[in-house]
Amino acid sequence: MTHPMYSASVPVFKQMLTALSELLKKAEVHVTEKNIDPNALLQGRLALDMFPLVRQVQIAADFAKGISSRLAGVDVPSWADTEVTFDDLQALIAKALAYIGAFEAAQFDGSESKEIVLRPGTPKEKKLAGTAYLYNYGLPQFFFHITTAYAILRHHGIEIGKRDYMGAY
Amino acid sequence: MTHPMYSASVPVFKQMLTALSELLKKAEVHVTEKNIDPNALLQGRLALDMFPLVRQVQIAADFAKGISSRLAGVDVPSWADTEVTFDDLQALIAKALAYIGAFEAAQFDGSESKEIVLRPGTPKEKKLAGTAYLYNYGLPQFFFHITTAYAILRHHGIEIGKRDYMGAY
Repeated sequence: MTHPMYSASVPVFKQMLTALSELLKKAEVHVTEKNIDPNALLQGRLALDMFPLVRQVQIAADFAKGISSRLAGVDVPSWADTEVTFDDLQALIAKALAYIGAFEAAQFDGSESKEIVLRPGTPKEKKLAGTAYLYNYGLPQFFFHITTAYAILRHHGIEIGKRDYMGAY
Repeated sequence: MTHPMYSASVPVFKQMLTALSELLKKAEVHVTEKNIDPNALLQGRLALDMFPLVRQVQIAADFAKGISSRLAGVDVPSWADTEVTFDDLQALIAKALAYIGAFEAAQFDGSESKEIVLRPGTPKEKKLAGTAYLYNYGLPQFFFHITTAYAILRHHGIEIGKRDYMGAY
């Protein structure tokens, strides 16, 4: 039996978060070798009114956690977003990977038609079926933050390439 | 009956390419109003060894075309990638939207287990099942180039936001 909602979410999050962890390791090596203040990169942005690298990583982890939880029908755990250092970000990614890794594919069965409510109780509340929530909302958001994290690193001279972004597939 | 392989591809490409078209319209208005050479933006990059905006749009359109074709089991049409201007890019996006819009959802049924060969006949040849091809290869690539196009625009001061990136969902 196939589990399309699982296959399109948890293994993809694992792939990309694992790749992001490797990207950040290369970035840390780079700033260490060049005697660069790590915060210059961790707080680096593509535009003044865009989030810095640390926040991009936090949001990517948050979407992996939130999408997986909502599709599986479990409460979304709240994490504090207190990360500051490369070590903190690695710990966050490891925590996210452990969290999503605990889901069984069968927990996602039937989530295609599950009603997911975005921003409940707010004027921007929006109801989506599970498929639209995953394909048209969740994945575009998740990939946005993964790619933007990569772009911040590339823009600031870290020697990485598309292969690093893609990870193992 | 649901068509997960179709739902996770064609409608997502439509959503994101339509949003990209709107992003580029805003960008063109911006450079026109500010008397900026449009090529400064069209050839803008996040790093010297990354592709410029024009190429990011071409590759995004290319993945939408290629992924849809391969999953549906039809030959991938070859397009010339000769775009230079904003009008060219709008025409390319319109062409891609018309092309993928012609697929029927049922053409994607069974593509989960279809073998897709990447870079056939080269040392980097890689065979993937349809699900891995879509979820773990195609979508990460497609979103990479859509997000990077967005990031180039944001980095160069175009007044757009996440809502514009997301489009209608």
